[in-house]
Amino acid sequence: MPKINNILGVSMASNSSNTRYGKRDDSLLVCIESGNTISAKFTNNSFKSAPVLIAQEHLQKLSGGKSVLMINAGNANAGTGKQGRKDALECCQSVAKTLEVPLHSVLPFSTGVIGEPLKTKNYVEAFSKASKKLKSDNWLKASKSILTTDTKPKLLSRKIKCGSNTVSITGFAKGSGMIRPDFATLLSFVFIEASINKSLLKAIHTEALSESFERITVDGDTSPNDSSVLAASGKTALKIIKGTANERKIRKAIIEIYQELAKQLIQDAEGATKEVLINVSHAKNDEQARSVAFTVAESPLVKTALFGNDANWGRILSAVGRSEGIDDVSKVTIDLNGTPLVKNGNIDPKHSELKASRAIKRKKLSINIKLGQGKKSYSVMTSDFSEDYLLINSDYRS
Amino acid sequence: MPKINNILGVSMASNSSNTRYGKRDDSLLVCIESGNTISAKFTNNSFKSAPVLIAQEHLQKLSGGKSVLMINAGNANAGTGKQGRKDALECCQSVAKTLEVPLHSVLPFSTGVIGEPLKTKNYVEAFSKASKKLKSDNWLKASKSILTTDTKPKLLSRKIKCGSNTVSITGFAKGSGMIRPDFATLLSFVFIEASINKSLLKAIHTEALSESFERITVDGDTSPNDSSVLAASGKTALKIIKGTANERKIRKAIIEIYQELAKQLIQDAEGATKEVLINVSHAKNDEQARSVAFTVAESPLVKTALFGNDANWGRILSAVGRSEGIDDVSKVTIDLNGTPLVKNGNIDPKHSELKASRAIKRKKLSINIKLGQGKKSYSVMTSDFSEDYLLINSDYRS
Repeated sequence: MPKINNILGVSMASNSSNTRYGKRDDSLLVCIESGNTISAKFTNNSFKSAPVLIAQEHLQKLSGGKSVLMINAGNANAGTGKQGRKDALECCQSVAKTLEVPLHSVLPFSTGVIGEPLKTKNYVEAFSKASKKLKSDNWLKASKSILTTDTKPKLLSRKIKCGSNTVSITGFAKGSGMIRPDFATLLSFVFIEASINKSLLKAIHTEALSESFERITVDGDTSPNDSSVLAASGKTALKIIKGTANERKIRKAIIEIYQELAKQLIQDAEGATKEVLINVSHAKNDEQARSVAFTVAESPLVKTALFGNDANWGRILSAVGRSEGIDDVSKVTIDLNGTPLVKNGNIDPKHSELKASRAIKRKKLSINIKLGQGKKSYSVMTSDFSEDYLLINSDYRS
Repeated sequence: MPKINNILGVSMASNSSNTRYGKRDDSLLVCIESGNTISAKFTNNSFKSAPVLIAQEHLQKLSGGKSVLMINAGNANAGTGKQGRKDALECCQSVAKTLEVPLHSVLPFSTGVIGEPLKTKNYVEAFSKASKKLKSDNWLKASKSILTTDTKPKLLSRKIKCGSNTVSITGFAKGSGMIRPDFATLLSFVFIEASINKSLLKAIHTEALSESFERITVDGDTSPNDSSVLAASGKTALKIIKGTANERKIRKAIIEIYQELAKQLIQDAEGATKEVLINVSHAKNDEQARSVAFTVAESPLVKTALFGNDANWGRILSAVGRSEGIDDVSKVTIDLNGTPLVKNGNIDPKHSELKASRAIKRKKLSINIKLGQGKKSYSVMTSDFSEDYLLINSDYRS
């Protein structure tokens, strides 16, 4: 495990609710001392969980005071109606009381099974216990406590030199199926020590998501619970000002953290045996590039062929041909890790079945699709459809 | 096997090319005597096979003379460039010569693996042998000769009374994966004895497709080879005139034949264990209804849950919520074969896990989604994602 840097002003603790996962920690509090700024983004699915709706309301009222992220895994508290809202608010109220903050300073996040009533008593007790043992170095436990079908925690940390200051950025995420933009079905929490004003923080957050979680897809499905938080604790002397060299440095570092978290999600995608980058270039416009990248990345026939180690370029070209905004494939060129597959919409004269089937056996694949229509490009990272994906998701209420 | 009616003026024969399928018949000729009208529709995928491009050209030149449908299975002749075109034309020329028709009277159709060179000699010989044994009652053999991964032939026939006349309609189809609109990846050939002028025939054909093959999906993928032919042999006294009672009768019968063929395709979809009808109603407009129906029908998480006998309404509601044109699920109601799942965007108070899990074990499922926003509706038929779907499609170059 790489070294994880603490973030001045941020402390956390997890506990077990003794519900879905038995004694495993599944209830996490992250406390951010006053002087902070917080950006949060939520699912674009119009089916939204109770905690997402409440967090959106509370977010409006935040103004730099001590704030608490309250996260539970195992139960999504979605589709649970008025009772679900009541349950989530009850958890928030309890945490607000214990940590002596106003109700709106508690942002709730849930992930897990949809449509089951929350065992509120259990979670209230778990959060209550957690609130008494907040520590600044509980990162690994925190990153593990939010997992559902993930097999590994996703936790990252960087130290960035900004002149005479050193700034730490630390973040963690969860998600392994139901992953798609917009910013994928997941929870992600990233913290930075510096001061960053709200509008700049929001802009950096938006850019980081568009360069990372919005460019990965496992199955095209999204959830009612997607949430992403970027918080600046403001506890060091460093103030990040828009347009400065420091800002560019920090922006770059934050984007890279999100990209690395996104990559770790794909590597741990449900049943994934391959990490696949779909690079579309020479597109007429951004929409065309994006549409082709996602159509190929989400084609069940492409994904099953990847699992089967079949360099089936016919399926890739068929997916390109049915993408929105494509009415001509006569200039399309496709290669796999540099091994030629398609030239001008037909089999590449240099195509070798032997070389292609050798290339596709690698764990890391780049499918490079040149449309021959312009200068725009877009990349999406995805995984294959394996027997395990199917078994995980056909297993009762995974 | 139900009784299959011959169509006056239509004869056929199949043979084996001794290529992909060994001694199994895979090469079919259907001869339609002069006095006919023919409507043909092709894939909307912009990646089009050589035979599709040629058939489109030839179709323009048809004017009622003796025509021949030339169909091969096992090789799609797609992505094969100039050589592919040459190969398809060579087959057409040979058939045109043997059956003494102009080149443009031969319409070629291919289905099978993409990107492999056609073994032209083998097919020319197979077609040549077939041309010498054309018979009016070879329907079953014909319907079997065009199959690829299908496990059963799809062949149907009806006799319709129109006043003092009786009209026969007979058709067959293939397709089991790569099935989606627009009119699904398939070949379908339907023949009717009556005289129908070209523009009326085309209109009936368009309506029949929109009510059948455009409403089924297996995996959302489409192929470069989709083709559908509706031919009126014109060999009986009966002339179908637009706006008459006879026209309505015939139109209805043709639509029903297409719907039944589409249903048979879904029942025989790759690895399917269930036949699932997604009924969306109370939508604001047609686009919304259609978008929800296809998003749910193609959601991998919904499809794997169906395979796993998990009445996971959370995944269904999540798919509804991410559909284009949906920004509110607060009035959405969902039931499964009448068993309540969702009411007003949350779990239905009448939901019973026991009843829902009993309901989902049936082979025939209707998922009824009421959006509560208007009066429009749309239905899509689909199948589940089973282990067999995965194994069939990850098997090398299926």
